[in-house]
Amino acid sequence: MADPTPAPRPPRIAVSAPGEATAEEIAAAEAVGRLLAERGCVLVCGGLGGAMAAACRGAKEAGGRTIGILPGYDEKAANPWVDDVICTGLGQARNAVVAATGQALIAVSGGYGTLSEIALGLRLGRPVVLLGGWAATLDSAEGRAAMPHVPRIATSPADAVEQALAALARG
Amino acid sequence: MADPTPAPRPPRIAVSAPGEATAEEIAAAEAVGRLLAERGCVLVCGGLGGAMAAACRGAKEAGGRTIGILPGYDEKAANPWVDDVICTGLGQARNAVVAATGQALIAVSGGYGTLSEIALGLRLGRPVVLLGGWAATLDSAEGRAAMPHVPRIATSPADAVEQALAALARG
Amino acid sequence: MADPTPAPRPPRIAVSAPGEATAEEIAAAEAVGRLLAERGCVLVCGGLGGAMAAACRGAKEAGGRTIGILPGYDEKAANPWVDDVICTGLGQARNAVVAATGQALIAVSGGYGTLSEIALGLRLGRPVVLLGGWAATLDSAEGRAAMPHVPRIATSPADAVEQALAALARG
Amino acid sequence: MADPTPAPRPPRIAVSAPGEATAEEIAAAEAVGRLLAERGCVLVCGGLGGAMAAACRGAKEAGGRTIGILPGYDEKAANPWVDDVICTGLGQARNAVVAATGQALIAVSGGYGTLSEIALGLRLGRPVVLLGGWAATLDSAEGRAAMPHVPRIATSPADAVEQALAALARG
Repeated sequence: MADPTPAPRPPRIAVSAPGEATAEEIAAAEAVGRLLAERGCVLVCGGLGGAMAAACRGAKEAGGRTIGILPGYDEKAANPWVDDVICTGLGQARNAVVAATGQALIAVSGGYGTLSEIALGLRLGRPVVLLGGWAATLDSAEGRAAMPHVPRIATSPADAVEQALAALARG
Repeated sequence: MADPTPAPRPPRIAVSAPGEATAEEIAAAEAVGRLLAERGCVLVCGGLGGAMAAACRGAKEAGGRTIGILPGYDEKAANPWVDDVICTGLGQARNAVVAATGQALIAVSGGYGTLSEIALGLRLGRPVVLLGGWAATLDSAEGRAAMPHVPRIATSPADAVEQALAALARG
Repeated sequence: MADPTPAPRPPRIAVSAPGEATAEEIAAAEAVGRLLAERGCVLVCGGLGGAMAAACRGAKEAGGRTIGILPGYDEKAANPWVDDVICTGLGQARNAVVAATGQALIAVSGGYGTLSEIALGLRLGRPVVLLGGWAATLDSAEGRAAMPHVPRIATSPADAVEQALAALARG
Repeated sequence: MADPTPAPRPPRIAVSAPGEATAEEIAAAEAVGRLLAERGCVLVCGGLGGAMAAACRGAKEAGGRTIGILPGYDEKAANPWVDDVICTGLGQARNAVVAATGQALIAVSGGYGTLSEIALGLRLGRPVVLLGGWAATLDSAEGRAAMPHVPRIATSPADAVEQALAALARG
């Protein structure tokens, strides 16, 4: 019998990365996935293709673990680098599950699905780090005023992962 | 027996308006609610207090109808100007139901709940009109490039309602 | 300006009635819809065709109001007797919204979607009345033991509506 | 660099097991969890205490993996034997995510939350195996007639796991 005493869980970091993505977003997502795995994190994402697949592939190449939270019921929609498939059937409301499941969120895309995950993450008080994508738009005085939580702006995949983990360490 | 032949449904317009709101947001939400009712629309919102209550009160003062889509299970959380209470128990995922139920969305707040409804509405292809709130942040070249749908910027409650109805009329 | 003082809301009763239904279920759903409307209730259902359409048609013929909570995003899926369309995009999870939105639930079908709404309604402490369908299966000693809430068994549409309203009146 | 070629995913089996459970349900859940792990399956459940914790503990004692799909946003609600915590915030609608995520479902409880997962699993066409709990109620002629999918009745934890895996093998 294995020792059932549970070890502490590794950090779960959500990566918001779209199915249709630019080459830059694909590269950023893959780098973020790889770095998260190297830091011992579990990667959470929407589970589909494009930059989601890139993030998962990066994590698996570095020996990490991945969770894919699908909008539909069919596991076949998951990219092959997803370890644990969560079939929600919730459509776009699954974005709320992605944002809530990550203890922090790194957003690498400029699409509206990502914007919804950024907003839901901040609404739930999760640390949110922007790497490209919405960074230029949301890093403004207007967006940062009078908010209890503000997104952090990262300059590289490594900086994004550092900021996400630092935010978790501060609790 | 009443004539069961169904009449066409009136337009359903979602108003994204937060529980904690500035005086300006409260006034804007109430004006939008009143104008929507005067134009024969059903108002859809998150059903709670603050600017949501203001929007509903405005609609009821003008003889309109209101739907409140609550995050929880208890109808007592609904403001008194909600006609039809929808108890979802979905937490923040109910924002996706608000965005999907409105055939168009008017956003009067600058909070993250509203940002999530803006993003989810645009993700679903619903016309989205910004009145104050996130308008200054999202009305930028960065945000508007390469998107199939972009938010419309309104200059007044009347302009917001006009733009929302014009977008619906164009189909 | 209309008087904005809100009147008390009419009771909302969910009717669990499937898209594919027997002739008996269709007839029961229509009768329940009509009787609910005659008693001043708002009817809540899943909004699609079959027995859901029958329930809504019955309610509208009696001058009542209807809410249809759809599993998808497209209002065109709603039957023509739905007054207020709620587009959830939640798939089968919308059954939880139907069960939660009704202050009581009347189940007229023997399918699994209805069984899920019965179970979710009871789980949430809502009064649940069974008219045919699952009545014979769930009206057993096994099912009724050790449960804080048990389904009520009705013998006719009128009895179902009476029991649902009586349960609400007891609060 | 680790080999990124993805291995086939292990089967995911949902175990419907309540927070408040009888001693018999606790023992059954733990045995099912242990046997699933011995057969190489990932266990999916609602992630909380009681029989959910027993199922997860059984799986971890046998060296398996566990996914806990929580109704709320706070990971602290998860029992310590959950490996991957999914925070949904969806309330009871999370039962639909549990039922959809399992490729098959084993139900060991007689409560309404479990009944909703049984019904949702069958509604989605997932194989459902009943071990105690609702078995006596649902194993009737009424419940089995005219249904495209019917629940399977198991006589022991080992039989339940065998039937679930056999159903998956038949596709």
